[in-house]
Amino acid sequence: MDPSTSALKQRLAEAGQSHLLRFWDELSPEERATLKLDLQGMDFQELNSFFKKAMELSCSCKDEKMDSRMEPVPQEVLGSVTRDRENVNCWEQTGLECISQGKVAVLLLAGGQGTRLGVSYPKGMYDVGLPSHKTLFQIQAERLLKLQHLAEEKLGKKCSIPWYIMTSGRTMESTQDFFSRHKYFGLDKNNVVFFQQGMLPAMDYHGKIILESKCKLSMAPDGNGGLYRALGKHAILEDMQRRGIDFIHVYCVDNILVKVADPAFVGFCVQKNADCGAKVVEKSNPTEAVGVVCRVDGHYQVVEYSEITLTTAQKRSADGRLMFNAGNVANHFFSFSFLKDVVETYEPKLQHHVAQKKIPYVDSKGEIITPDKPNGIKMEKFVFDIFHFAKTFVVYEVLREDEFSPLKNADRQDGKDTPTTARHALMSLHHRWVLNAGGHFIDENGTRIPAIPSLKDGTDLPIKCEISPLVSYGGEGIEALVKDREFHPTLIIDESGVHQLVKNGL
Amino acid sequence: MDPSTSALKQRLAEAGQSHLLRFWDELSPEERATLKLDLQGMDFQELNSFFKKAMELSCSCKDEKMDSRMEPVPQEVLGSVTRDRENVNCWEQTGLECISQGKVAVLLLAGGQGTRLGVSYPKGMYDVGLPSHKTLFQIQAERLLKLQHLAEEKLGKKCSIPWYIMTSGRTMESTQDFFSRHKYFGLDKNNVVFFQQGMLPAMDYHGKIILESKCKLSMAPDGNGGLYRALGKHAILEDMQRRGIDFIHVYCVDNILVKVADPAFVGFCVQKNADCGAKVVEKSNPTEAVGVVCRVDGHYQVVEYSEITLTTAQKRSADGRLMFNAGNVANHFFSFSFLKDVVETYEPKLQHHVAQKKIPYVDSKGEIITPDKPNGIKMEKFVFDIFHFAKTFVVYEVLREDEFSPLKNADRQDGKDTPTTARHALMSLHHRWVLNAGGHFIDENGTRIPAIPSLKDGTDLPIKCEISPLVSYGGEGIEALVKDREFHPTLIIDESGVHQLVKNGL
Repeated sequence: MDPSTSALKQRLAEAGQSHLLRFWDELSPEERATLKLDLQGMDFQELNSFFKKAMELSCSCKDEKMDSRMEPVPQEVLGSVTRDRENVNCWEQTGLECISQGKVAVLLLAGGQGTRLGVSYPKGMYDVGLPSHKTLFQIQAERLLKLQHLAEEKLGKKCSIPWYIMTSGRTMESTQDFFSRHKYFGLDKNNVVFFQQGMLPAMDYHGKIILESKCKLSMAPDGNGGLYRALGKHAILEDMQRRGIDFIHVYCVDNILVKVADPAFVGFCVQKNADCGAKVVEKSNPTEAVGVVCRVDGHYQVVEYSEITLTTAQKRSADGRLMFNAGNVANHFFSFSFLKDVVETYEPKLQHHVAQKKIPYVDSKGEIITPDKPNGIKMEKFVFDIFHFAKTFVVYEVLREDEFSPLKNADRQDGKDTPTTARHALMSLHHRWVLNAGGHFIDENGTRIPAIPSLKDGTDLPIKCEISPLVSYGGEGIEALVKDREFHPTLIIDESGVHQLVKNGL
Repeated sequence: MDPSTSALKQRLAEAGQSHLLRFWDELSPEERATLKLDLQGMDFQELNSFFKKAMELSCSCKDEKMDSRMEPVPQEVLGSVTRDRENVNCWEQTGLECISQGKVAVLLLAGGQGTRLGVSYPKGMYDVGLPSHKTLFQIQAERLLKLQHLAEEKLGKKCSIPWYIMTSGRTMESTQDFFSRHKYFGLDKNNVVFFQQGMLPAMDYHGKIILESKCKLSMAPDGNGGLYRALGKHAILEDMQRRGIDFIHVYCVDNILVKVADPAFVGFCVQKNADCGAKVVEKSNPTEAVGVVCRVDGHYQVVEYSEITLTTAQKRSADGRLMFNAGNVANHFFSFSFLKDVVETYEPKLQHHVAQKKIPYVDSKGEIITPDKPNGIKMEKFVFDIFHFAKTFVVYEVLREDEFSPLKNADRQDGKDTPTTARHALMSLHHRWVLNAGGHFIDENGTRIPAIPSLKDGTDLPIKCEISPLVSYGGEGIEALVKDREFHPTLIIDESGVHQLVKNGL
């Protein structure tokens, strides 16, 4: 055994992870090299301490009930597009000013693979079947482009919104390829920065790292909260600082309605002097599977739906609404200085959450076993874990039908958050934009279709209507195109004009 | 031609409906007899005047916008299970007293066939696939039985709740058979009264009655508002009077969660001295396809979703809620004296609504044509048309997840109001009953399942749990059975006890 292998063996032994070399003697030289490379980059003592703390946290959570310690978000930190309508324009104006001054960046969490969606490529590359067949990445890119133009128009100053895209080891290459192939969808490639989130090995309940084959560890991304460590590791903050970024909008790739760099949200947070803010939608059914933003022992956090008892979930305020109704949509605001503090100071204090999983492993005979019940854990941090450290935390409530429709699962009967629900949500929003701008839809007989079309055969088929983000970011600027006009669906409005897609083509 | 045929011919000519005998010469004696029988029972002058008025109403509706005349339900007539929680027990007590005094009857609208559901028998006979495989009729019958027992227990007096079931010509026989075959599900058959709603012929746009074959008119039920005419025709009010009924709960068969004769709703209406009341659920999305209870020109009515503009649908109150959010669920309260006034005085003033339909017809060559666009109308009255005449109208808001899940359509991808959604709604409610009574559910490993179970593979599968209405009407009385106990789903609680249905049978 060569000296470096001996040293590795020694390190593994000290960390109680010697079993990782259990099949060493059977491996080919290439397999040995791969395994060694993987292992040499790892800090086993650190991993063991992650495991210990995560398991402690997991156990303590089960013992004590969160319920008695939870308080709802107080009114004074809450902004709402429905209750504070008169302020929204003013917030938006502030946001656009910040954008035009080049102070706003966007941070996209795109590390997940489309496993539940049934595809092997990054979710952002998914086409939900809109008339334009645009992917999530393209829709988001075009919203950024449009927002830059709006800020420029409004404030007469050329500007850009840097887009930081966090991928994982598994999605980096295909994501970069995809952007490059599509010429960054019209964005300046210098303003699109890819970086990679970390991976952690899966462990069994005794803290032993799991081998998925004789020469390969079972690895998984370290959760969307891996963001903070990755920001440090890849010097992203330095890049932001160089560009003069003061405010960062963080969001998750899977929401087809996401208002990327939403100027109203950014403006609200800036006006409130917030270091950290969360966009939420109202949770209206006690058993809806959504985490809620609230305070626990005086600190803000997201309490996941699995942590809450029914009694707490059912609590109502005097106005009849659910007391804990600030539904988390993975859509956050950070000030640059707060994010810097998080990366430099707070991140190491964050503990990993434990997710029990069925993890395929190689048994002592070298056979690969796919367990039918959970046999180990993955360790994850969550992006909202750092709310805890915020000094001025604010919450911004928006309408679900306008801003939140995540793509998580493949189409199936009674499926939630599927390509179909995402596509319908977008077309329904764009249908409303047209009506609100004074346009009308007519059916094949020339009769106007009611604003709320009747259900045909029980399927809630929306009017087919898609408006390119290059034409409108949030419904603005389409009056000149649609007012007092009547359209046959499918209606498509894009940079080349207004098209009615009738059955035999355009 | 015999004298009676001549007379008929004459009547038809005077009413401009002579075309109905167009194929007379080709008909067999039996066909002639059938057609004659159908025609002789009809008042063509009345039909023509229905048509004229309905078309006038339909046109006037299109001209004037409803929007400017609509006002939301004022606070003072509104009761809410979430905002007036402290009163609910008191309302329920009043309702139970009325029931125990034999003053409450239930009126079921069950005239519809399960066409959209894809079955040819009455909807009430549908089995949505609960563990018990109970039909909607059985569930509702058992709720009535249980409520009678609850009222008896509470007030020490034997009582019954008469159940008036309105069928249509098409569903009467099978409905009666079904009840008889199932021994009225334990109810006294003298307290179950069937009666039949009327039918009206379909007409073309010129007011000509449509022939569906050479010897048969195209007939359809006259809408759920046909109730009032049918009540008069079948002397149902006299039956109610004989039994001493003061209060009537009207509901539609398709809601699997319906609280039949809901004592809290009845008690609320009685305490408010209402002659008419509507149970509603909050409409929370502007484009949800639900009618809203509101005032128009000072009178209460339901404005259907197809009549409303998006601007009005989107209006919000200062609290951020939709201004027109009282979603109609076809669940109403009438005082007996109001219902009597309606039947005797107001009903004839109600105008028919026009529903444009694709109506199969026989053409001049005698061929049967199935049109691909609407070619005529059906005339319908709506059960809520009489809100207009109420002197003291009240509105009672309940939680959708607790009380409303209608069965309308067959199962299909993204289907709304399907057997699956109905089944899930009921099991989810019963799951919450168990948790709220102190019970717990555990998975195959013995671990407690969180109150809000996580989504597996994107399908929101509820914990399988069904509690017989004979055990609990609204979640009451199960503590002794479940408190501090742990259950494996499927959990079934019925009159024979608590069962856990594991994979290999009970």
